[in-house]
Amino acid sequence: METGNLIGYQYKEARGNGFRAIDPSTGNQLPGDFYTADSADVDSALNLAEKAAAIYRYVDKKTKAAFLRSIAEGITNIGDELVERAMAETGLPQARLQGERGRTTGQLNMFADLVEEGSWVEAVIDNALPDRQPAARPDIRKMLIPVGPVVVFGASNFPLAFSVAGGDTASALAAGCPVIVKVHPAHPGTSALVAEAIKKAAQKHELPEGVFSILYDNGYTIGEALVKHPKTKIVTFTGSFKGGTALLKMAQQRDQPIPVFAEMGSVNPVILLPDALESRYNQIAEQYASSITLGAGQFCTNPGLLIAMKSSGLEKFKKALGDALAKINSSTMLTPGICKNYSALSAEMLAEQGVSIIGKGNLNNDKANQAQPIVATVSASSFLVNPKLKEEVFGPYSLLVEADFEVQLQQVLDDLQGQLTASIVADDTDLVKYKSLIQGITSIAGRVMLNNVPTGVEVLQAMQHGGPFPATSDSRFTSVGTGAIKRFVRPVSWQNWSNDLLPDELKNGNPLKIWRLVDNKMSKE
Amino acid sequence: METGNLIGYQYKEARGNGFRAIDPSTGNQLPGDFYTADSADVDSALNLAEKAAAIYRYVDKKTKAAFLRSIAEGITNIGDELVERAMAETGLPQARLQGERGRTTGQLNMFADLVEEGSWVEAVIDNALPDRQPAARPDIRKMLIPVGPVVVFGASNFPLAFSVAGGDTASALAAGCPVIVKVHPAHPGTSALVAEAIKKAAQKHELPEGVFSILYDNGYTIGEALVKHPKTKIVTFTGSFKGGTALLKMAQQRDQPIPVFAEMGSVNPVILLPDALESRYNQIAEQYASSITLGAGQFCTNPGLLIAMKSSGLEKFKKALGDALAKINSSTMLTPGICKNYSALSAEMLAEQGVSIIGKGNLNNDKANQAQPIVATVSASSFLVNPKLKEEVFGPYSLLVEADFEVQLQQVLDDLQGQLTASIVADDTDLVKYKSLIQGITSIAGRVMLNNVPTGVEVLQAMQHGGPFPATSDSRFTSVGTGAIKRFVRPVSWQNWSNDLLPDELKNGNPLKIWRLVDNKMSKE
Repeated sequence: METGNLIGYQYKEARGNGFRAIDPSTGNQLPGDFYTADSADVDSALNLAEKAAAIYRYVDKKTKAAFLRSIAEGITNIGDELVERAMAETGLPQARLQGERGRTTGQLNMFADLVEEGSWVEAVIDNALPDRQPAARPDIRKMLIPVGPVVVFGASNFPLAFSVAGGDTASALAAGCPVIVKVHPAHPGTSALVAEAIKKAAQKHELPEGVFSILYDNGYTIGEALVKHPKTKIVTFTGSFKGGTALLKMAQQRDQPIPVFAEMGSVNPVILLPDALESRYNQIAEQYASSITLGAGQFCTNPGLLIAMKSSGLEKFKKALGDALAKINSSTMLTPGICKNYSALSAEMLAEQGVSIIGKGNLNNDKANQAQPIVATVSASSFLVNPKLKEEVFGPYSLLVEADFEVQLQQVLDDLQGQLTASIVADDTDLVKYKSLIQGITSIAGRVMLNNVPTGVEVLQAMQHGGPFPATSDSRFTSVGTGAIKRFVRPVSWQNWSNDLLPDELKNGNPLKIWRLVDNKMSKE
Repeated sequence: METGNLIGYQYKEARGNGFRAIDPSTGNQLPGDFYTADSADVDSALNLAEKAAAIYRYVDKKTKAAFLRSIAEGITNIGDELVERAMAETGLPQARLQGERGRTTGQLNMFADLVEEGSWVEAVIDNALPDRQPAARPDIRKMLIPVGPVVVFGASNFPLAFSVAGGDTASALAAGCPVIVKVHPAHPGTSALVAEAIKKAAQKHELPEGVFSILYDNGYTIGEALVKHPKTKIVTFTGSFKGGTALLKMAQQRDQPIPVFAEMGSVNPVILLPDALESRYNQIAEQYASSITLGAGQFCTNPGLLIAMKSSGLEKFKKALGDALAKINSSTMLTPGICKNYSALSAEMLAEQGVSIIGKGNLNNDKANQAQPIVATVSASSFLVNPKLKEEVFGPYSLLVEADFEVQLQQVLDDLQGQLTASIVADDTDLVKYKSLIQGITSIAGRVMLNNVPTGVEVLQAMQHGGPFPATSDSRFTSVGTGAIKRFVRPVSWQNWSNDLLPDELKNGNPLKIWRLVDNKMSKE
């Protein structure tokens, strides 16, 4: 495995500041010495990326699509080595990582299809009106163009699907932007294996050097230097509120401010309505015990907040949820730091006024860094006066808020900050009784579910993974699904250009056969 | 004329802090006492707007379209009084204001058509795949929803088309967002007349009170209070870099940051290529003398920077431009303050190292606040080392930068900040010789012209009026054309909802007959 910083097509030689990955299930170091980049590496990567941007932008869409498919193929071809290294670096189980590998290659192939089809550029043509009075109207045509070098921060909780060749990288490369990945220090070996696959794919398709680079850092210096570098045009990040808002502030204070697409977490409220609880408390308890503990609760869509009104059904649900949790074993968290934070924060929550435990999972003492699943409960009146209880606990923890009546339940909802998701669990009779409450749910979240758990984010056209602040830094964009490509582009209008000088997407006769809005009509002609 | 602050359907009674409009052509006060709002007014307007938002969002698209058309009709029905008051308050000529009134009603009707057609919500449907392995895929559907109360700052330079019922208001109301206008203090009477037309239209269609309000302020307090109010969701602004960045900072420092769409000006570079100058110096000089002085140069797309290489054609062009300017009379600027700034800043520019005058227009001493057109010239080498020369001079001033050779011309371009527009003036032979320079032009601007002047922004689907910072605060959006509606919405996904609970836009059978992306295929079925 090549462990050096990869700048364009060159691995840099080892220098000081080495670090190793840690197996969280044992606490032991893993083989492979990685090296924190320096500011000269940041400069080199961005200089190459800027030059590559001017060329890569004009690479034809078939080649871009083939590049993305070659990356997917390269990742698959790494074989068991990749899954094994990712298991060792993250403590995640084999089946999950095999699934995540499939999602990662699926995302690359999905963006390849999107780019090859081509309509995503939103081409618009308003033909000239030479006879318009009092003055002729010129020909004006618009489409989306790539903005330039993108810095992607690898996420700890998706070592493949939101890391080196994850959704951010795939969508940025699809848009026509070079990518520099700041590797997450928890899984450098996984990152190195994937980076080599991207490098080989770029070389195979003779893309300009600098279309892709990766830099390692087990601290914060390189991330900061990347965000502040004048040639960086866009930043993507998945992680904590503290990390995301720090990057956002740096980006806003630049001479030329740039967008940071930060996904910063969410408690993903679930509203459990009375008739549903009464009629299917057991099924709902099983479903949520499983969703809360999936992947050791380390998902941005983890249901961290359940909200219900007091009822006999709720009492039965609490009992069933406690029973279901008792059957679930603890699992290894991604890093010792994450595990330490989980233990500390969940203990703090349980010590808050009025909070009591509904149920717990079993603690496995054979492995290190175990997260014990916990569901606690608190009254709505205590919740409403205690801001601490609204914070996210990253891990398999969820808080049930019990309201005395509907108005109080609505108060709890009104009191919440922006969310990635919000879910309703309801029977048909609930849907009639709580119509206005249910209708209002879209105002707090980017994705709203009915009788579905929020975990399991589908990768498709209709996905919105991004909600009002502080769930994400910009609720108008998504980081999952085809829409993710729109984060890396801006529209440009061409006025009065001759046909041969226009991009193919905007030429007369529609040589690329894409959907276009021509004189106010959608057309493939 | 009702001169009170309009909060929902109520005019507030007169209080202290009165002010009057000034006729810039005489410097005299105009009739009508206006009153600066207070913080209680801001609170009332936003409380009403928030309540209205929850209802107005669900008003059917036919009613929203009828509302916009009624506003347009109401503005037309004010008749001569509106144009006369606007002339008195702005010093702009009658024909310009009649034209601007047409543009304003045209924009309202354009958004009415857009909303009534309905496809702008970008509906996407991915049907369920119940048999997918290892788990069924749920039904997921996405569309754009309005975000909530919008604060619109009226612009001084478009008293109708970018003021009370201008493009920002029309597009926000079309998107389904209530609007609160902070009136520009230079044209309060024009604003009051238009506000009454909007109020009447809202009442006619029985829209919720608070869908529209206006507040007056001849200082900065109310604008600041509006941007900082927790119920404000979006801000639009057209004006200076200083004003725009101040609002941006306030918005970013809120507990919940919000977007500010600020259009902050631009020098709109024009690249004059040698063969074109040689073959048609007279025509180009006439065209640009007229574009530079149009509306006393008070347009965001005013061509403030001409760039050319030294040649015999350039010498002939300079002479012709000087001659053309000498035939143009000065005109009244919008306010005494703008005129004072223009005189001071243009004088400062002329005093800079290496700057000399090519030509001037005639100063009309019969009227107050006159802007004398000026075109100056400077060498590229002087320009490159003097940041002062890159600043915008708001008014009929333009600077010609003379490069010694192509590389230096490219250096001048690379040295520029983000621009609303960039223009190329070229003959066919130039297009071949300077191909790479011309291709690169899209990286600095939102709209690029070939042999067209940048002034005269067409209102249509293909228009992009928004460029890289600092031309606008967010180059991904436009403030002119149908795309402007996208500033006021965010996408939401509905997962696993039954058909009757979905918005009509997303229902099976496509009851609204809009364009939708269904299982990856565009369809009106």
